[in-house]
Amino acid sequence: MPKFVYDFTEGNKDLKDLLGGKGANLAEMTNLGLPVPPGFTITSEACRSYLADGAFPAGLGDEIEAHLAELERRMGKRLGQADDPLLVSVRSGAKFSMPGMMETVLNIGLNDESVRGLAKQAGGNDRFAWDSYRRLIQMFGKTVLGIDGRFEEALEDLKGARDDLDLTAADFQRLVEVYKGIVRDATGRDFPADTREQMRMAVEAVFESWNAPRAILYRRQERIPADLGTAVNICTMVFGNRGMDSGTGVAFTRDPGTGQQGIYGDYLQNAQGEDVVAGTRNTVPLQDLATIDPAAYDELLAIMERLENHYRDLCDIEFTIERGKLWMLQTRVGKRTAAAAFRIAVQLADQGLIDLDEAVTRCSGEQLAQLMFPRFDSKVKARKITTGMNASPGAAVGRAVFTSERAVELAEQGEDVILVRRETNPEDLGGMIAARGILTSRGGKTSHAAVVARGMGKTCVCGAEELEVDVRAGRLTAPGGVVVEEGDVLSIDGTTGAVYLGEVPVVDSPVVEYFEGTADPSDDLVRAVDRIMRHADQARALGVRANADTGEDAARARRFGGEGIGLCRTEHMFLGERRRLVENLILAAGGEERQAALDALEPLQRADFEEIFTAMDGLPVTVRLIDPPLHEFLPDIVDLSVKVATGRGSDRDATLLEAVKRLHEQNPMLGLRGVRLGLVIPGLFAMQVRAIAEAARSRREQGGDPRAEIMIPLVGAVQELEQIREEAVAILSRTGVEALVGTMIEVPRAALTAGQIAEAADFFSFGTNDLTQMTWGFSRDDVESAFFGKYLDQGIFGVSPFETIDRDGVGRLMRIAVEEGRRTRPDLKLGICGEHGGDPESVRFCHEVGLDYVSCSPFRIPVARLEAGRAAIAGTTSDTR
Amino acid sequence: MPKFVYDFTEGNKDLKDLLGGKGANLAEMTNLGLPVPPGFTITSEACRSYLADGAFPAGLGDEIEAHLAELERRMGKRLGQADDPLLVSVRSGAKFSMPGMMETVLNIGLNDESVRGLAKQAGGNDRFAWDSYRRLIQMFGKTVLGIDGRFEEALEDLKGARDDLDLTAADFQRLVEVYKGIVRDATGRDFPADTREQMRMAVEAVFESWNAPRAILYRRQERIPADLGTAVNICTMVFGNRGMDSGTGVAFTRDPGTGQQGIYGDYLQNAQGEDVVAGTRNTVPLQDLATIDPAAYDELLAIMERLENHYRDLCDIEFTIERGKLWMLQTRVGKRTAAAAFRIAVQLADQGLIDLDEAVTRCSGEQLAQLMFPRFDSKVKARKITTGMNASPGAAVGRAVFTSERAVELAEQGEDVILVRRETNPEDLGGMIAARGILTSRGGKTSHAAVVARGMGKTCVCGAEELEVDVRAGRLTAPGGVVVEEGDVLSIDGTTGAVYLGEVPVVDSPVVEYFEGTADPSDDLVRAVDRIMRHADQARALGVRANADTGEDAARARRFGGEGIGLCRTEHMFLGERRRLVENLILAAGGEERQAALDALEPLQRADFEEIFTAMDGLPVTVRLIDPPLHEFLPDIVDLSVKVATGRGSDRDATLLEAVKRLHEQNPMLGLRGVRLGLVIPGLFAMQVRAIAEAARSRREQGGDPRAEIMIPLVGAVQELEQIREEAVAILSRTGVEALVGTMIEVPRAALTAGQIAEAADFFSFGTNDLTQMTWGFSRDDVESAFFGKYLDQGIFGVSPFETIDRDGVGRLMRIAVEEGRRTRPDLKLGICGEHGGDPESVRFCHEVGLDYVSCSPFRIPVARLEAGRAAIAGTTSDTR
Repeated sequence: MPKFVYDFTEGNKDLKDLLGGKGANLAEMTNLGLPVPPGFTITSEACRSYLADGAFPAGLGDEIEAHLAELERRMGKRLGQADDPLLVSVRSGAKFSMPGMMETVLNIGLNDESVRGLAKQAGGNDRFAWDSYRRLIQMFGKTVLGIDGRFEEALEDLKGARDDLDLTAADFQRLVEVYKGIVRDATGRDFPADTREQMRMAVEAVFESWNAPRAILYRRQERIPADLGTAVNICTMVFGNRGMDSGTGVAFTRDPGTGQQGIYGDYLQNAQGEDVVAGTRNTVPLQDLATIDPAAYDELLAIMERLENHYRDLCDIEFTIERGKLWMLQTRVGKRTAAAAFRIAVQLADQGLIDLDEAVTRCSGEQLAQLMFPRFDSKVKARKITTGMNASPGAAVGRAVFTSERAVELAEQGEDVILVRRETNPEDLGGMIAARGILTSRGGKTSHAAVVARGMGKTCVCGAEELEVDVRAGRLTAPGGVVVEEGDVLSIDGTTGAVYLGEVPVVDSPVVEYFEGTADPSDDLVRAVDRIMRHADQARALGVRANADTGEDAARARRFGGEGIGLCRTEHMFLGERRRLVENLILAAGGEERQAALDALEPLQRADFEEIFTAMDGLPVTVRLIDPPLHEFLPDIVDLSVKVATGRGSDRDATLLEAVKRLHEQNPMLGLRGVRLGLVIPGLFAMQVRAIAEAARSRREQGGDPRAEIMIPLVGAVQELEQIREEAVAILSRTGVEALVGTMIEVPRAALTAGQIAEAADFFSFGTNDLTQMTWGFSRDDVESAFFGKYLDQGIFGVSPFETIDRDGVGRLMRIAVEEGRRTRPDLKLGICGEHGGDPESVRFCHEVGLDYVSCSPFRIPVARLEAGRAAIAGTTSDTR
Repeated sequence: MPKFVYDFTEGNKDLKDLLGGKGANLAEMTNLGLPVPPGFTITSEACRSYLADGAFPAGLGDEIEAHLAELERRMGKRLGQADDPLLVSVRSGAKFSMPGMMETVLNIGLNDESVRGLAKQAGGNDRFAWDSYRRLIQMFGKTVLGIDGRFEEALEDLKGARDDLDLTAADFQRLVEVYKGIVRDATGRDFPADTREQMRMAVEAVFESWNAPRAILYRRQERIPADLGTAVNICTMVFGNRGMDSGTGVAFTRDPGTGQQGIYGDYLQNAQGEDVVAGTRNTVPLQDLATIDPAAYDELLAIMERLENHYRDLCDIEFTIERGKLWMLQTRVGKRTAAAAFRIAVQLADQGLIDLDEAVTRCSGEQLAQLMFPRFDSKVKARKITTGMNASPGAAVGRAVFTSERAVELAEQGEDVILVRRETNPEDLGGMIAARGILTSRGGKTSHAAVVARGMGKTCVCGAEELEVDVRAGRLTAPGGVVVEEGDVLSIDGTTGAVYLGEVPVVDSPVVEYFEGTADPSDDLVRAVDRIMRHADQARALGVRANADTGEDAARARRFGGEGIGLCRTEHMFLGERRRLVENLILAAGGEERQAALDALEPLQRADFEEIFTAMDGLPVTVRLIDPPLHEFLPDIVDLSVKVATGRGSDRDATLLEAVKRLHEQNPMLGLRGVRLGLVIPGLFAMQVRAIAEAARSRREQGGDPRAEIMIPLVGAVQELEQIREEAVAILSRTGVEALVGTMIEVPRAALTAGQIAEAADFFSFGTNDLTQMTWGFSRDDVESAFFGKYLDQGIFGVSPFETIDRDGVGRLMRIAVEEGRRTRPDLKLGICGEHGGDPESVRFCHEVGLDYVSCSPFRIPVARLEAGRAAIAGTTSDTR
């Protein structure tokens, strides 16, 4: 039979699986000799057993009773003892923090008799005793018996206009009777006077709260496994509400907002913890405790220093002072902002508390990305009208518009707009694309607006519920009667959720300036980031390249630390004025016209490549041959059909329409593109390869060091690659240029037959965008807006597979391809060039499966460098995983 | 060092890998004591070594010399011996027959001296000797030296209007001089007088012919591995051209056309084998040999009987009679028509030569399918105007049209049309769909017309090169001045390639009548098919179900041996008049309107299901919930846009256009469909499940035995299935009906996570159409017509992956899913419902991976039954694999 109950003296901080976060840390503090009220923890294993069987597992009742008896012996008083009752709290505490989701009952142990004993023991403090009793009935009634709202109403009725502190013992005694009536009324039974029954029912209620609908939903959204269960902590009560020499507070060992060292926290005299949370009374800064109770203050500061040294990190703390005696009720490693994370990590390393490896693991790529978004200038006083959910980071300024059509119209006139909607739906897509930012009054982080904005990398604040959006009137109303009409300027902060009236100046991130080489080197955030990045670069095994199609992008990528180009898309070179040349290629009546069209394109491509080779001199540049179906370069079939049918089209339009119809595909993503184009259109790929080879030769002749890699897209069978490779190798050798020839792995079959494909490839680059689309069978354009929000809500995805590599599906294909490709060709170079290359979790995955490099947009390069470093460190120090 | 040369006495018929088909069978006949001219075989291993190194492997030269010396000793004469030369033939012979692809040189051993010895030994038959010599130079010049055409011209010049037999010894002697001049002229060297050099050069030429472009192309198309190499047979020459007491012939042990027992073959007096092939002189029926040379005839018949008993199969034979002495030059198991295959297999079983297992393996599903196509009535005398390639089987009759537009127009008027083109291209798709059959004058079996027609299951004759097609004039001209104008009736036979003028009556296949139960039971083909099918059914492990959406189809499937329905597509029930109800569903403004639309559909669906359950009473019926995106039920976006833009649309059209635009998808195949619809549209799947459950309950109340299985399409993650399953199970239990709930495996991710998905599935059904599309990343509609022909030509595919399961890609995913699905749930039912379920090779694969059943169109059920039986038999008797 497993051990279901651990005394606080028996556990430690590493037993979170079994004791939950709270229980493990209470045990740790107990063993450090800190003043923790005695108590014990019921394990999550007991909870799982209870949830499976609907009853306490055999032995649990006895174990609890034994620990309770020992607690009573130690404290010299018994639960429910009439003259001097022991009171306990019953608190949930799971492995992962689920704030606000789980249950707590305080003051277990009171009944009509023991309340008088408590009063007597409290030196005749009747008010305290009856207040404690009514709190018990209220929390028990709500949590254990499921009675909602009626206790609060009764309290309000009694209070009238008075302040909490004005209520008397008699008031609370009367309230207890009212509360007992509410319980009888709602459940048909009396509030249990048996204090052991109180405790048992509270424990069961905490167990069951694990499966409350809101807890289930929360876990789904946060990807917390559903079968962990919660531990339960039974802790001797201490009272911050025993008078003005008592109180309760929360504290941080450093500023969680900035990372500055100092004393941060709040204190509330004569109160219990829930009063602080409820916010009905105003707290004072923790510093004030130095004058209120200097001894307790000094002790607290000493304990905080001890905890920080012990945990080697920022800790947050809950404490209570009962009649001058300090008690520690909770501690844990505290949450912090992105800037604080970097500063604290470097501070701790400077203090010698952690080494630099550890410091790097404390700073995430997500946090670095946050620091790189432009921000509103904090020095400018702006008028914040509300705060919504920070759905997609960034800072956007523009004129408010209330319909998608209007957003498109104004954007076409060159205006920056913020699209304001109650909520968005697929019909708003055009407007969302046109807008600088999106603001909604409804919906959470998985709403349509949030999902689509994140997919687009567009700033979004959603669920700003204080706003009333009247689309028809073209107006929103904010608290305090603020009215915003169409055309008024709004500024929205997708990183914090803040919404400002008027234009707030946007400032560049100092972290971006750091990467650009223009930052103030004395800025301590910049210094912290520099330390972390240098160490991450030293540690990482993965190379980091850029997806870049122009010399300008390539140069920026290089400044950001890019070690080459992993994906240079040549189709982007066919846009703008060159589109007409591509049209000529498509309209070519025969071989000669086609070759003429290709000949016209070749010098332009060659110039493009020269520019990129120059920017990336000495570093590899992977050029992907043309990928999209040719009809993508032609006008839209509906628009053109209508134009021609209504007589507004030219002769060329009529010709183009024929071509558009001929080339029209039901599913262009699954159509004539990539290597298929190369095999079907004579000369197309040859032209591109020649342009690359000639550009490289020209650079070399000018003393440069061009390193071209030619990448064939959409290969599904080695036979396709063989034919193109043969042609390419012949051209290269005629030009006297050396270049690797490899392929993207973006079709599931390519991964499944990687062992064959590697016979003809010098490198693989995983095109995880297409690979995700084909592995799941959905096209991002079509489905992200149509149902990803629902899928995220319902827990089908924890995160969009277009953001983070889906390990079980796409990731499995990647593992197959890596393993079987390397088996065929041990020196096969392996990289990734889908957008996942800049996603932290995906970078870690790429490190795990043993890729050689990741490639991502220039802006994400620092994130990838950091995460690659963290992944390498995690791989060598198992305790950080 | 391996043994590179085998005497005919050393090999046997099972050594085809090493000795090639011809060499192995020559050895087999030698060992049977049949009159085979002595000789030896150089192995394919020697060829592979030669091709890799460009030179004879060490030891080969010596081995050849030793065997040649032994041959000379045995024959008592030497190669090139002036007074009595040994002559040999040098013939290729690979493991797989590659007719017309590989090389042969006869009469090696002649030079200016030995030709005279040959003449003397031939009793002064100078004509024979000089004819043999000129043949040597001609074949050697062409095959070994690569000189084309000029020998034939010289022969023609010499001959003038005379017949071959009129040429004299002097003529041939003169021709030899001319030929030697041609050789000197073309190569700068003399024709080699050294007879051993002749032989060595001929052997090398045969080796090299393996890599001739046409051989490479042929192997690619026939999926013969490229690295096998060919064996070379050196065989003592015997001469059918030594006078009227000599000759050469071919024979079959049974009629390869019908399977009838009897004597079938052709004989040509005073001739060598190539004269028969060239067709310059007319052969006589083999029976005539009974009078020409009764002794040889009797001996041949005895040998043929012996061979058939020995090989236990129809054999074909090449033989030569030299001055009354019979020599066997080749035998092999002969090719035959589909009808012959069935008749012969059953005859041999009746004779006790083979058992029924073996008989079943001798009849392929492809052959059975051929027998099931409708045929032209052979009793009606029709005017055949030409024969092209049999590109896609069937018999089609219709009016000739020469453009796609015209095909569509006439078809819309209810006319049957045959689309006649020089060749087709993607723009002809519409016309091909509208036509009953397609006829082209250019292009082979991988041409656009052939590939697309096969994909559509439409009759096609392609590459009818004798036809001149004039599209502009709307006319074709056939040999003999036959002119066919637009509107004239043509009949084309896709099974034989024949093209007839006028209407030829089409008769039902007796085999189809057999399955329908209406056949004449005394028809011996019907009796043969019956025997084979009964035994295949007994042997097979795979169940065979039908893809059927109506009661009528279900009933036919049952007559054809279907053991249930593996795929009932519910979307087909939303067409026709019901389309408007679906439109209402799509246009519904809110929950109530949507539910009203669903309520209107429910009774119709329920009636559909009742009908199907009735037809399949007692057998499982797998109903797939709606799969396609809803916009497929709406009008085409281009048509509707033009209609509305040009003011020809109604109010409803305008409303519909909005919906069409809202629902428009870039890639509908990868869009909002299948389980995604079920999760996004409240009530849709529930309506369908309820209709199934109520139909089943109603059938049960009427005493029926309905067995519903509910199938969820397009699942990619177990979480999707769990949610739908929960809803379905609740509805079923409310209705009091039991049904399995399972999923299609048609998205690669479903296969990759099958272990998880099996947790929520009672069965898997592989949807290999979509699985193929997503695994390869191409949509059949878009790419088959655009590039499959090129891919087949270039050997990227051996066969379209939509016809036969691609083992390496799609098949690998299936194996993963089978293995991991069963690991989770050992009783998981596994089937396939893609079109591959009726493809012979794919059925065998399904047996191999251990599926429980295949499901296919009713018409393909017999094919699947037969192939399932063959696969089971092959699995238990390894020698047939």
